[in-house]
Amino acid sequence: MKRTEDTLVAQISRSLSRDANPKENARLLGPGDDAAIYIPSSKSDLILTCDWFLEGAHFLRALHPPDSVGWKCLARAVSDIAAMGGEPTCFLLSLALPQNCAGKWLESFLGGLQRASKRFNCALAGGDTTKRDEILIQLTVIGEARKSTAIRRSGARPGDLIFVSGRLGEAELGLRLLRRRPKQPLAKNAALRKHLYPQPRIELGQWLARNKLATALMDLSDGLSIDLQRLCKASGVGARISSEKLPLPVMGNTRQTSRLNRMQLALNGGDDYELLFTVPRKRVHRIPPQWRGLPLTTIGEVTRTKKVLLSLPNGRDVPLAAQGWDPFRS
Amino acid sequence: MKRTEDTLVAQISRSLSRDANPKENARLLGPGDDAAIYIPSSKSDLILTCDWFLEGAHFLRALHPPDSVGWKCLARAVSDIAAMGGEPTCFLLSLALPQNCAGKWLESFLGGLQRASKRFNCALAGGDTTKRDEILIQLTVIGEARKSTAIRRSGARPGDLIFVSGRLGEAELGLRLLRRRPKQPLAKNAALRKHLYPQPRIELGQWLARNKLATALMDLSDGLSIDLQRLCKASGVGARISSEKLPLPVMGNTRQTSRLNRMQLALNGGDDYELLFTVPRKRVHRIPPQWRGLPLTTIGEVTRTKKVLLSLPNGRDVPLAAQGWDPFRS
Repeated sequence: MKRTEDTLVAQISRSLSRDANPKENARLLGPGDDAAIYIPSSKSDLILTCDWFLEGAHFLRALHPPDSVGWKCLARAVSDIAAMGGEPTCFLLSLALPQNCAGKWLESFLGGLQRASKRFNCALAGGDTTKRDEILIQLTVIGEARKSTAIRRSGARPGDLIFVSGRLGEAELGLRLLRRRPKQPLAKNAALRKHLYPQPRIELGQWLARNKLATALMDLSDGLSIDLQRLCKASGVGARISSEKLPLPVMGNTRQTSRLNRMQLALNGGDDYELLFTVPRKRVHRIPPQWRGLPLTTIGEVTRTKKVLLSLPNGRDVPLAAQGWDPFRS
Repeated sequence: MKRTEDTLVAQISRSLSRDANPKENARLLGPGDDAAIYIPSSKSDLILTCDWFLEGAHFLRALHPPDSVGWKCLARAVSDIAAMGGEPTCFLLSLALPQNCAGKWLESFLGGLQRASKRFNCALAGGDTTKRDEILIQLTVIGEARKSTAIRRSGARPGDLIFVSGRLGEAELGLRLLRRRPKQPLAKNAALRKHLYPQPRIELGQWLARNKLATALMDLSDGLSIDLQRLCKASGVGARISSEKLPLPVMGNTRQTSRLNRMQLALNGGDDYELLFTVPRKRVHRIPPQWRGLPLTTIGEVTRTKKVLLSLPNGRDVPLAAQGWDPFRS
């Protein structure tokens, strides 16, 4: 008798164990039992995070290649581990699928997920599958950080400088390009690649944590304007960032967009998965302008007043409106 | 500016931290950051599990009280930890809600979840929330088991006796009663209580693990007929169970149901969250008929042949058809 749920679980396990990390495998009894067994390192704290990735809300079946859906669902959950300065170790996949996605769509999805799993050194530990009209994906990632080195959002202090990695707003730009021309070649466009295949900044986060360089750290998932407010609120501080210092998206060979639009993208675009962090002035000299090829940019400073302000080129400070993505607002 | 997603996260954290376990709190940096930090015990292995609990598939908004939905979503995920002989420690909640459930429904849901969290000693570590037309719930539970004591499904050996805890088919019976009379008083009916507020057998699982009594262990979530096949497949063995030995559901003051129907319920009813385990003959004397008031019943034995058979009262053995719940079959 064919047990379809068990068959599906077996297919997922097979796809994802193909290139699993042998180091992790020795510490992990993965899928197939009631639960997974994981032997944590005695030198580490655990980092736990979970993320929805839902058809219609986080991706569109007609627009997003299943391979990208597989990559991105893991990449964005892993980014929360990077945002604590941790290292991902294993993940649990909860997947609800329409019957007509159980063939080709699933195969391609698992391909992207498998590459991400290999790239991020993060093995499948277990999961749950069921049938549903729409594709529902939920990822839980377990990571580790050396004892007491994980960096929270709440440590920013007045006078600290504010940094971001990479360029901001590119993923949002990539989404707009994809909507305009769904079939364009991926290789030609960095923004499109960033939207479809984001790269969580795992190594940078770990470097900041191990060297105790950052007082506060988070990843930019909903947009700088909302995420910076969250960091400030958690730390009980304010911030002043300079519009002229923002690392704006590069437009590449696409239609020219005004500087104002590029700034809007950098302030409010979501899905970049770059890191936002604060560094005390006495340690700023240890932050290079580029880290392994990734730009690190000072965009402003932490202030005592709890306001979050944007300095405009004319010298005026205006309150920074939190306009990033919030599913309950739309 | 009101950030609705952040407000919702704060409400969930507040509700669930009220009665959190201080012992666990010292080891847990819970919700509010990019990810949770958890300090695992150096004497334990981690147990990881996750579970869907979806409107329409696992519960019905019109039929199931939100308080029960809150209790049950954690209880059934915790049951997977019990099924390894582990102890739950913390959980992550992924919740997608319609806007019109963000008030009263949510409050009642969180009430049930909070009681379960307290009862199972399992604290909220983090989660993710979003908006959706239907209520989607996903739980990940982290548990611990003393090093190398977790019990898998795969250790059953020919000659071992097969045990189940409690009575089988009661939760399914409770669901049928609920469908027939949605407003009946809960207190009067054990089957209804078991359907709405299942009790994972955490202490029993731990007792079996710590005393190395069971060679294989799992929980009965989809029904004995399918779950026993899974245990046998994982162990590379078969089984013969006796229809006359099954602990049938007690009908209480409800309409009399035939013995045949009660047997069908016991074999194929899901959602009982009782434990199924195998014990080598030389250790069987250590398994009492009741454990802390919970019946433990021998229902059959593990066989060398890979068939799973049901012995009927007339002495005939028939293949046991796997008719438990499988979302991809219906």
